[in-house]
Amino acid sequence: MPRKFGLPRGIHDVTPEEMAKRLWVLNKIMKVARLYGFQMVEPATIEHLETLEAKSGPDIKNEIYCFKDKAGRDLGLRFDLTVGMTRMIASRYDLPEPIKLYAIGGMWRYDEPQYGRYRYFYQWDAEIYGSSSPLADAEVISLGIDILEEMGLKDFEVKINNRKFMDAFLKNLGLNEEKSLATMRIIDKLRKKPKNEIEVQLIEVGLNESLINKVMELVSLNGKPEKILSQIPKEALKTEESLKTCNELNELFSYLNSLNKNEKCVLDFSVVRGLDYYDGIVFEAYDKGGEDIGAIFGGGRFDKLCKIYGRDVPATGVAGGIERLMISMERNGLFPNLPFQPETFIAVASSEVKNKALEVAASLRKAGFSCDFDLKNKSLKQQLEYANSMGIPIVIIIGIKELLNNQVTIKEMKTRKEFKANINDIPQVLTKILKGN
Amino acid sequence: MPRKFGLPRGIHDVTPEEMAKRLWVLNKIMKVARLYGFQMVEPATIEHLETLEAKSGPDIKNEIYCFKDKAGRDLGLRFDLTVGMTRMIASRYDLPEPIKLYAIGGMWRYDEPQYGRYRYFYQWDAEIYGSSSPLADAEVISLGIDILEEMGLKDFEVKINNRKFMDAFLKNLGLNEEKSLATMRIIDKLRKKPKNEIEVQLIEVGLNESLINKVMELVSLNGKPEKILSQIPKEALKTEESLKTCNELNELFSYLNSLNKNEKCVLDFSVVRGLDYYDGIVFEAYDKGGEDIGAIFGGGRFDKLCKIYGRDVPATGVAGGIERLMISMERNGLFPNLPFQPETFIAVASSEVKNKALEVAASLRKAGFSCDFDLKNKSLKQQLEYANSMGIPIVIIIGIKELLNNQVTIKEMKTRKEFKANINDIPQVLTKILKGN
Repeated sequence: MPRKFGLPRGIHDVTPEEMAKRLWVLNKIMKVARLYGFQMVEPATIEHLETLEAKSGPDIKNEIYCFKDKAGRDLGLRFDLTVGMTRMIASRYDLPEPIKLYAIGGMWRYDEPQYGRYRYFYQWDAEIYGSSSPLADAEVISLGIDILEEMGLKDFEVKINNRKFMDAFLKNLGLNEEKSLATMRIIDKLRKKPKNEIEVQLIEVGLNESLINKVMELVSLNGKPEKILSQIPKEALKTEESLKTCNELNELFSYLNSLNKNEKCVLDFSVVRGLDYYDGIVFEAYDKGGEDIGAIFGGGRFDKLCKIYGRDVPATGVAGGIERLMISMERNGLFPNLPFQPETFIAVASSEVKNKALEVAASLRKAGFSCDFDLKNKSLKQQLEYANSMGIPIVIIIGIKELLNNQVTIKEMKTRKEFKANINDIPQVLTKILKGN
Repeated sequence: MPRKFGLPRGIHDVTPEEMAKRLWVLNKIMKVARLYGFQMVEPATIEHLETLEAKSGPDIKNEIYCFKDKAGRDLGLRFDLTVGMTRMIASRYDLPEPIKLYAIGGMWRYDEPQYGRYRYFYQWDAEIYGSSSPLADAEVISLGIDILEEMGLKDFEVKINNRKFMDAFLKNLGLNEEKSLATMRIIDKLRKKPKNEIEVQLIEVGLNESLINKVMELVSLNGKPEKILSQIPKEALKTEESLKTCNELNELFSYLNSLNKNEKCVLDFSVVRGLDYYDGIVFEAYDKGGEDIGAIFGGGRFDKLCKIYGRDVPATGVAGGIERLMISMERNGLFPNLPFQPETFIAVASSEVKNKALEVAASLRKAGFSCDFDLKNKSLKQQLEYANSMGIPIVIIIGIKELLNNQVTIKEMKTRKEFKANINDIPQVLTKILKGN
C-alpha cells in the first residue's frame, strides 16, 4: 500500500463541491463592491515581519507564520488584508482621496484550529482611506449589509458603537489609558464569557464595584438608537467629548437611515472590538440564529494606523471571513444548486467513431456547451455509467449506423428518454433541453 | 516624514489596474476549463516539506520558502498546484476516473527575480488523472490552445514531443538512465543557450562527437508531424519501443486534428521538459513574437508521480503562468478597456441635500449601477474635479431648487453636456447614456 501524505494541522484543500459554492459567494461580493465603487487589489502574501509588527506589536509573532528567508531576513505570511492595503496606499499619492480599495484573499494565522476557523482562510476586506466623516463608516457598514443580503441572508443584525465615546466614558470614570484599553479588551469578550468571569477580570484590572456597575450598566444597553440614546445615563454624557462622540453615532445612524439600512442596525455599547488600533466607530454583524460562529463581518475606524505606514490619513473599513459566511449560508440553506459537472457527455458506440466524437465535442464547446468524452476506451455501457455517476444530464451517443445518416442519439439521463437528432442540430436541441430543466 | 515599509524582494502587490486585467484573464480561463468539464479546486497553500520533496527531491528546499512551524514541523509553501491536486485525488476514491481537476492560484518560489518572474506568482493548472490514452494529452493541449485563443492570442505554437520516444532513442545510443536524464536536462536549455555551450555540456556528461551529432540531428527536427515523422533517421526507429512511442505521437496528432487544433501544433524533438517526473507526451506553447518570456503554457504526462502520493494512476496535465500570459497579451495589445471606476458619482450642491444623495445612491446601486458620492464635504467644484480625476463618466448633481421639482442635473463628463431629469427616471437615463458610450 503506497503511503499517503497528510496536510499540516489547520490547513485544508478546497474540494470541487466547496469551490463551486465559494466562487458563487466571491462573485457576489465582487458585484456588490463594484456597485459601491471599491477598486479591487491584492496586497502581497509575504511581508517583512516589521511591517506586520507595526500594526499589531511584537507579540504578533506568536500568532502568525513567520520565518527567516535564505538571506536571513525576517518575513511573515499576511494575517489580514488591512496591513497590505494600508502599506499600498502610503506610496500611491497619485490616487485622489478618498481611496476605496477592497481585496478578497487567503491569509494565515497560527491559531488553535476550531469550528469554522482554519490556519489558512479567506476574507473579503474593504477600506476607505481619506475620509473622517461618519459617512464613510456608513458606507462600509452599508456595503457589509448589501453583501449579506446579496447572499440571501435575512436574519442578521449589525451592532454599532463608537470607541471614542467609550474612551470618553471610561476616562470620565477616572481610568487611565492603559486601564481603559484593558477594560475594552475584557468587554470585547462579553459575548463569549459568563458575566461573572468578566467582572472578576475587571476587578483584576483595578475597577471597584461601583465602577464595574457603571461599566456593566452602559454595555448592557443595546437596541434601536432612537431608544438607546435616551437611556444613556446622564453621567455618561457630561463632558464635551462624550456629547460630541455620541453625536457622531447620531449622525452615522441618520446616514444609515438614508441608505435604507437602519432596519438592520442597532446601537450596542458592548461592541468595542478588542484590537487596540480601532479608534472611532466600530461594528460587528451577527447571524441571529448563529452567534456561535462569531461575527460574520466586523470593522471600524482606524485613523491612527495609516500614519504608522507612512501616510497620515483617516481610514475606516469592514472585513468578513468567507468560510464563516459560508457556514451561515449553509445553515440557512441559501446555496442554490450549483452544478459543477459538464452539461454533456459524448459517448461512442465503437472506437471507429472516436475521432468523430472529438469533432462534435470541439464544436459544442465552441458553441458554449460544456462537454466531456471518454478517455479510457470504455464500453458504451461503461460510458453511460460514468456519465451517470458524474451527474451529467445529457449524453450524446455516436454510432456508425446513425452517422451514415448524419444522426446521433441524444439521451436525457434523468428521464432515460432517448431520441435521434441531426448532427448539425445538436446545439439547438441542447439549448431546448437545458433551458427546459 | 513617517517611514515607509517596503516589500520583500520578488514579492509585489496587485494594483487596481492590474487586478482588472487579471480578473478578465481568470474569468476566461474558468470559462474554458468549465467547457472542458474540469472541476475547480484549491489545494492547500502550506504542505509538509516531505510532501513537496516527494515530487522534486530534497534539493527543492533550496528553491522554495520552507520553515519550521511553532511545533517544530518542517513545512513549505506550495511551489506548484500539481503536488496538491495529486495529493488530493489520492484520497478521493469516491471520484470516478478519469478525474479532471483544475486550479488557479498563487505559488511561491525562492528564485532570483527576473523579468516576468516573481517569487509569488499565479498559475492555472489542469490535470487529468486516470487515463493513459494520448486522448487525455490531446485534451489538455486543446484546453491550453482554447485558453490562449479565448485571450485573443493568435500567433502562438505548441511544440510537442514524447519523452518515451526520446528515452528509447537515447537508450538505443547506449546511454544509461542517468546519462539519459542528464542529456534531457541539457537539451531542455536549447532555447536559452548557444548550441556550442550545449555541446560542451553533453561532452561533460560523457557523450562522444558521434553521439552528440546524432542527438543534435534529432533535436533539430521540428515542424508539422506529416513532414517531420518522415524525416526521423531510420536508426532512431529500429526498436519496438521507438516505433510504439513514435506511434503515440501519431495518434496524438490525429486526435488534435479532430479537435481542430492541428493548425497550432508542431512536433519538436527539442522539447523534453527538464523535470525528471515527466514520462510521456510533453509540450510547450510559445508566443511566436515573444519567446524571450519563455513558454506561456507547458505540461505533459506524469504517470509515475501519482503512485508516490498514494494512488497508482496515469496522469497528464497542463499549466501556465498568469503574469507571463498577461505580458504576452499586453505586448499584443489584447486587453480591452476595462473600467474599474464607478459609472456614476452623486454630487451635492450643498450639504443640506447630503442625505438625499445617499437615498439616490442606494436606489441606483439596487438598480445595478455602480456609484460613489462625496465623503469629504467637498464643494461642488471639488466634487466634479474628483469625479473627473477618477474617470467617472456620469455625475448626478443634487441641488435644493431642482429637488423641489423632483429633478436632478445629469452631467456627462466627457462631453460636459448637462441636462435635467426627473429623480425617478435616473436609471432609464443612465441606461441610455451608458449603452450609447
